[in-house]
Amino acid sequence: MTIGGFVRGYKFAYMLLAASLLDRRNRLNQIAYVNGAFVPLAEAKVSILDRGFLFADGIYEVSAVLDGKLVDNASHLARLERSVGEIALALPEPLSRIVEIQRELIARNQLENGLVYMEVTRGADVGRDFAFPKSGVKPTLVMFTSVKDIVNAPAAKAGIGVITVPDIRWTRRDIKSVALLAQVLAKQAAAEAGAGEAWMIEDGKVTEGGSSSAFILTQDDVLVTRQNSSAILPGCTRRAVVALAEERQLRVEERPFTIQEALAAKEAFITSASLFVQPVVSIDGKTVANGKPGPMAARLREIYIDFARATAV
Amino acid sequence: MTIGGFVRGYKFAYMLLAASLLDRRNRLNQIAYVNGAFVPLAEAKVSILDRGFLFADGIYEVSAVLDGKLVDNASHLARLERSVGEIALALPEPLSRIVEIQRELIARNQLENGLVYMEVTRGADVGRDFAFPKSGVKPTLVMFTSVKDIVNAPAAKAGIGVITVPDIRWTRRDIKSVALLAQVLAKQAAAEAGAGEAWMIEDGKVTEGGSSSAFILTQDDVLVTRQNSSAILPGCTRRAVVALAEERQLRVEERPFTIQEALAAKEAFITSASLFVQPVVSIDGKTVANGKPGPMAARLREIYIDFARATAV
Repeated sequence: MTIGGFVRGYKFAYMLLAASLLDRRNRLNQIAYVNGAFVPLAEAKVSILDRGFLFADGIYEVSAVLDGKLVDNASHLARLERSVGEIALALPEPLSRIVEIQRELIARNQLENGLVYMEVTRGADVGRDFAFPKSGVKPTLVMFTSVKDIVNAPAAKAGIGVITVPDIRWTRRDIKSVALLAQVLAKQAAAEAGAGEAWMIEDGKVTEGGSSSAFILTQDDVLVTRQNSSAILPGCTRRAVVALAEERQLRVEERPFTIQEALAAKEAFITSASLFVQPVVSIDGKTVANGKPGPMAARLREIYIDFARATAV
Repeated sequence: MTIGGFVRGYKFAYMLLAASLLDRRNRLNQIAYVNGAFVPLAEAKVSILDRGFLFADGIYEVSAVLDGKLVDNASHLARLERSVGEIALALPEPLSRIVEIQRELIARNQLENGLVYMEVTRGADVGRDFAFPKSGVKPTLVMFTSVKDIVNAPAAKAGIGVITVPDIRWTRRDIKSVALLAQVLAKQAAAEAGAGEAWMIEDGKVTEGGSSSAFILTQDDVLVTRQNSSAILPGCTRRAVVALAEERQLRVEERPFTIQEALAAKEAFITSASLFVQPVVSIDGKTVANGKPGPMAARLREIYIDFARATAV
């Protein structure tokens, strides 16, 4: 290596390190909300006795932000209310106040495009006991934001590969709880395989992705996605996409499908609040159709983005 | 009510409140360990980005303390090592250091009889992503103690009632993860029914209790407890009790059993690190045998306590 090459290499490594440290500082300087206080994310903490930390005794939601506005937020708040109800957890703040906090975080962080995460847990008692705390323990509410350009995500154009894993989760997947270890392992397996998502399989059928809903478009132009039940999370984006498709006279069948059907389909795609609609171009290394993103996923993505922009508040 | 009665009632209520506040203060003044620091439990906190809090991406263990010494601790540490291995989580400290921290907490809190809780999580990254963090994120290690007189617990003499609930957990119950929401709901249902534990039922057989292993003693004097598999947690106390029973030539069968068998049994009992051995005198309100604690549970409890005292370090 020449001296010039060495110096350039050194400068490049230094720039990468500096960029990474800057990104880290920027992220941790974002303002978060913790039980009534707005604090930098670096200082946002909960007790080690918090039941979210000890027992995964909590519920979460993620809402997208486009142009500083919340996307399909009422749907997320309705699901939050349902989930906490299913585990007999009282919200520490009314939904109206939760929206105010979401908005305040967006304003304080000058968030244009990204996500607002919120988590409610059964709070921190003075010790550790599986049964609910006696009265007087206030549930924990935390929120934070992150920057993400969902509309211009490269994967939306290029499509993603998915892998399949057995669905090893508990039976109440309709509750959006933070007991997500199975999803973590599924999505880590996907990452290690260079895939963008893991589709979970139960009794030979796809339930859903690790953090998204699964769709296919059959050769007969029928959109197929699994019907809601305790086997899957009732996806907010899934729900909106189904409604938008039906409004446009597209045929939708809500039923389970197999990987064989997906591989024989015209298209496959996933939906979620944090990526909207993304084409799936391969499953376990086998291509879906010609292995290229198809027109239906692109069209539904456009329709969803239009809906999101038009209805964001 | 006389004035004297009113004053006495007032004084009593005041004493109860004062005792409760004192208990709360005492508990939160206990010293806990968080990532290298020893701090009062009231100040022991983790980031809201901790993957234990966001994803239940963590493992825990609870060791009993008798006369200031750790009970069956090597067994708990071996299970800790196995559990973290199953989710590809590296311990942030070697086991030898973890034992030192356990001991230091016992010393600092002058703990005679009680429990040491420890939790390892995949740490806090600068954002929220299901897949494991890139290198450089250190796992979180927290520990705290609590006072508990396990040997003289009234339930050990009186016995407990259990209720049954469907086992709705994920399929990797051999991993002692903090994704415990199903157990929280099961044990809350038990508490609401005035029972001491919930036995979880799958395919008509008992898997285990919400936080304990389940045993019966058949009319033929055979001890029956479910064999280890991914369907249950490999209980440390279960393991010790089985070994102690076999050493004493008691017959042990490791296989699933039904509630009908349990109700027809001579005795039923549970084991766990935090209660040792406790007799079960009723199931869903129906008595086991004559509804009184039996001699086998009492004997195994004594044997276990002797073993615990003799081997605690």
